[in-house]
Amino acid sequence: MSKKIRTAIEPTREQNYAEWYQQVIKAADLAENSDVRGCMVIKPWGYAIWENIQKALDQMFRDTGHRNAYFPIFIPKSFFEKEAEHVEGFAKECAVVTHSRLEDDGHGGLKVAGELTEPLIVRPTSETIIGASFARWVNSYRDLPLLINQWANIVRWEMRTRLFLRTAEFLWQEGHTVHESQDDAMLETRKMLDVYADFAAEYLALPVIKGEKTEGEKFPGAVNTYCIEAMMQDKKALQSGTSHFLGQNFAKASEIKFQSRAGGLEYAWTTSWGVSTRLIGALIMAHSDDDGLVLPPKIAPSHIALIPIYRNEEEKVEVLAYCKKVEALFYKEYFEDMRLYVELDDRDLTGSERNWYWIKKGIPLRVEIGPRDIASEAVMVARRDKEPRDKQSVPVAELKAYVLQNLREMQDVYYQRALEFRQVNTIKIDDKDEFYRYYTPKNQDQPEIHGGFALAHWCGDTACEEQIKTDLKVTIRCIPFDAEQEEGKCICCSKPSQQRVVFAKSY
Amino acid sequence: MSKKIRTAIEPTREQNYAEWYQQVIKAADLAENSDVRGCMVIKPWGYAIWENIQKALDQMFRDTGHRNAYFPIFIPKSFFEKEAEHVEGFAKECAVVTHSRLEDDGHGGLKVAGELTEPLIVRPTSETIIGASFARWVNSYRDLPLLINQWANIVRWEMRTRLFLRTAEFLWQEGHTVHESQDDAMLETRKMLDVYADFAAEYLALPVIKGEKTEGEKFPGAVNTYCIEAMMQDKKALQSGTSHFLGQNFAKASEIKFQSRAGGLEYAWTTSWGVSTRLIGALIMAHSDDDGLVLPPKIAPSHIALIPIYRNEEEKVEVLAYCKKVEALFYKEYFEDMRLYVELDDRDLTGSERNWYWIKKGIPLRVEIGPRDIASEAVMVARRDKEPRDKQSVPVAELKAYVLQNLREMQDVYYQRALEFRQVNTIKIDDKDEFYRYYTPKNQDQPEIHGGFALAHWCGDTACEEQIKTDLKVTIRCIPFDAEQEEGKCICCSKPSQQRVVFAKSY
Repeated sequence: MSKKIRTAIEPTREQNYAEWYQQVIKAADLAENSDVRGCMVIKPWGYAIWENIQKALDQMFRDTGHRNAYFPIFIPKSFFEKEAEHVEGFAKECAVVTHSRLEDDGHGGLKVAGELTEPLIVRPTSETIIGASFARWVNSYRDLPLLINQWANIVRWEMRTRLFLRTAEFLWQEGHTVHESQDDAMLETRKMLDVYADFAAEYLALPVIKGEKTEGEKFPGAVNTYCIEAMMQDKKALQSGTSHFLGQNFAKASEIKFQSRAGGLEYAWTTSWGVSTRLIGALIMAHSDDDGLVLPPKIAPSHIALIPIYRNEEEKVEVLAYCKKVEALFYKEYFEDMRLYVELDDRDLTGSERNWYWIKKGIPLRVEIGPRDIASEAVMVARRDKEPRDKQSVPVAELKAYVLQNLREMQDVYYQRALEFRQVNTIKIDDKDEFYRYYTPKNQDQPEIHGGFALAHWCGDTACEEQIKTDLKVTIRCIPFDAEQEEGKCICCSKPSQQRVVFAKSY
Repeated sequence: MSKKIRTAIEPTREQNYAEWYQQVIKAADLAENSDVRGCMVIKPWGYAIWENIQKALDQMFRDTGHRNAYFPIFIPKSFFEKEAEHVEGFAKECAVVTHSRLEDDGHGGLKVAGELTEPLIVRPTSETIIGASFARWVNSYRDLPLLINQWANIVRWEMRTRLFLRTAEFLWQEGHTVHESQDDAMLETRKMLDVYADFAAEYLALPVIKGEKTEGEKFPGAVNTYCIEAMMQDKKALQSGTSHFLGQNFAKASEIKFQSRAGGLEYAWTTSWGVSTRLIGALIMAHSDDDGLVLPPKIAPSHIALIPIYRNEEEKVEVLAYCKKVEALFYKEYFEDMRLYVELDDRDLTGSERNWYWIKKGIPLRVEIGPRDIASEAVMVARRDKEPRDKQSVPVAELKAYVLQNLREMQDVYYQRALEFRQVNTIKIDDKDEFYRYYTPKNQDQPEIHGGFALAHWCGDTACEEQIKTDLKVTIRCIPFDAEQEEGKCICCSKPSQQRVVFAKSY
């Protein structure tokens, strides 16, 4: 009988992935459900991850010529109705403001009052309200391209919510750009998808597949939707960012016209693109383990937990003084382009309790310092990606270099690990029965555990896409950019196909 | 007859201060009214000022032990009703969400549907919704102090709005903290007021008066409200930040209780404090002139406008190449703790047009570079606080040092100028008639122009405060912390008083 190893998170990923996810969030103290239906509270450790995502992306947006601005949270109903597909896509789940005050109801309570002449929608996305400004700002080709980004909160009245992955309110950024020509707008759409993919790889250590959404999965009102898709550890896909080529649809809805170089008045071409706090869900599900959160160092709120070890008050004084010296080594230090932070944990808990606390929070490095370490001028360093008891003695004189090198290594390890996991769990399938078997759970207690990504041929017909979705809850995640052209037969109907697409179950 | 000097902004401050304010915003392209009642669009140059405010304050909050988090935008009506004074203060102007979708109205339009069982208020401030989380987070004195800040958007259904100063939606930060004792909470309240005052002085070059609000002017639900008040160039006061000692009022409303050191279960003591995009209004009105926006360098989105001067295509190529070298001198350079940015303005406009463009935008320094400057290896530098034609020749080799020194000087000049303006326009008044004359406009066409701040005695009676407000639209801005104790008579009723307070008209 093999000895069961106790993990910090229960259940484990294998036992119950969905519940494991909730428990990782709880143990790392990232977020909680609020008393408002579907809205989450993002706690400091979770919010700090979002701030790091913002910092890195914001610089990438700026470097590609974008500037931030802020637009109203409310969208008049009439604006919302301007683009038919758009309103169709969002009308079923939106928060509607209808009144402007509360007044005494005569029974000691309050009732709504001050009915608005036109209801206001709390933005589920801002194409229409930003379009109204852009119509004022754009007059001539000289005003183009117009490259704007907004960091904002968004509300979509989702019925089934899950922390970070799907919440009624979430935080995001939405880029909105206006261009002279179709080509310029298309280049922008693809460029920003590349920015997202680079960011995911470099900061989140998340390998993604870039591709195009099918007609049925694209953004309401878009001509083309491009996306990045990542594999989670349950082998499901998570859409991690989208970039939309909107053609002239929203320019026409909002009357964004400009004097062209040729002298005529033309409708402009627009794009929009966004990523959200959902990325934190991706981060958790791609890297964390049965001991809790795992954070790629480039996105971690803090990098080193300093854990003083002492047996009595005298030792405590000595050890804490030494810890402060070690902490000072990293004052205003950077790990690549991110500020490096140290947490000196001097709480009155055992060394083991403090170690596990930081393991569950996913801090990349733990540094233990006790009287013996002071004597030898060396400290014990543990990496989050190794076994909890695996510690390395490092001379204090070499600590800074050791830290920077190991953070870099860990960042690479997480990326490689996620990439290999995806490669192992992605296969080409040409046989329909095999395809159906691939997506049939082996164990009825664990309906979540199934095959992974399938690269299979598809004829392009929405009916086949729908059939597979109905039968298996599997969807086409994207038509990947890097797929080779090859002859094949649709996995559903056997009609001819020129290219494989990415099928998967998804969040 | 004196020659009239044409200004870039019309009307001038003297001609029509309120209209001048709108025109400065327009000329600097900071913000605009949106199609949504009372909501503004913050344009890139305005938003970049807000981002700098955020950056500086956020570091100050972090350095004082606070961490950022994010809470729901919606507050259930029942939460809002928990604190009687609080709901009384905000119920009359709030956006209420009552429905969760739109559906076909049978006439080609959409009607609201999906009525909520409980209306949700779009947060006008977050004490009650944050209190619900804090009640879960706080169990023992070991969990205290709890020091949280949130950057968020806020909605208050104001009837009369004005860009930055008073808008239905605005951006702000709200600090919310929980403490073991009354003393700790009071210390926090005062400490954060000091942070605001230091920030205003150091970054916004804005001298402020710190003090306490009277009973009639305090935050709904607070025990004490402290504030910083600044003088604008029309001699009116602008409340620029507030810090509230909430006693146990909100702890009782939200059931924030903790196990004390003594072992009993006690209600906690809380504080809240905030500043908003209103600070941009303060910045504009305190420093700008009849040529447009004036920006203290430490808060400016960009610091140097590089203006290439050329007469033909050949010169243009040479000058632009040289400008790029000058620009590179400042790559990743800092002005104190803020990143220093350069705008290379190579638009096909005249030198004069480009100069005035940047003057109106308030960029601190303009650097002109033409063929002669290249030959002499020196450039012409103009400061925003000097006459537009006042330019200094500066050797390129000394440019970096010159820029940093002059930015520092300008920062100090703006502070000193604002301080002197306030000192000149603040007087002690002990006579009621004089007080009334002080606040009576000299010219009926310019009702805005009046005396300034008055330091006068007040007996402490709300009736006197109300009388003066009714007669003159003058209010007690604060009971200043630094006032001496002295015997006097109330400016309104002549009853005895121990201290002077600050009276002013205000925004």
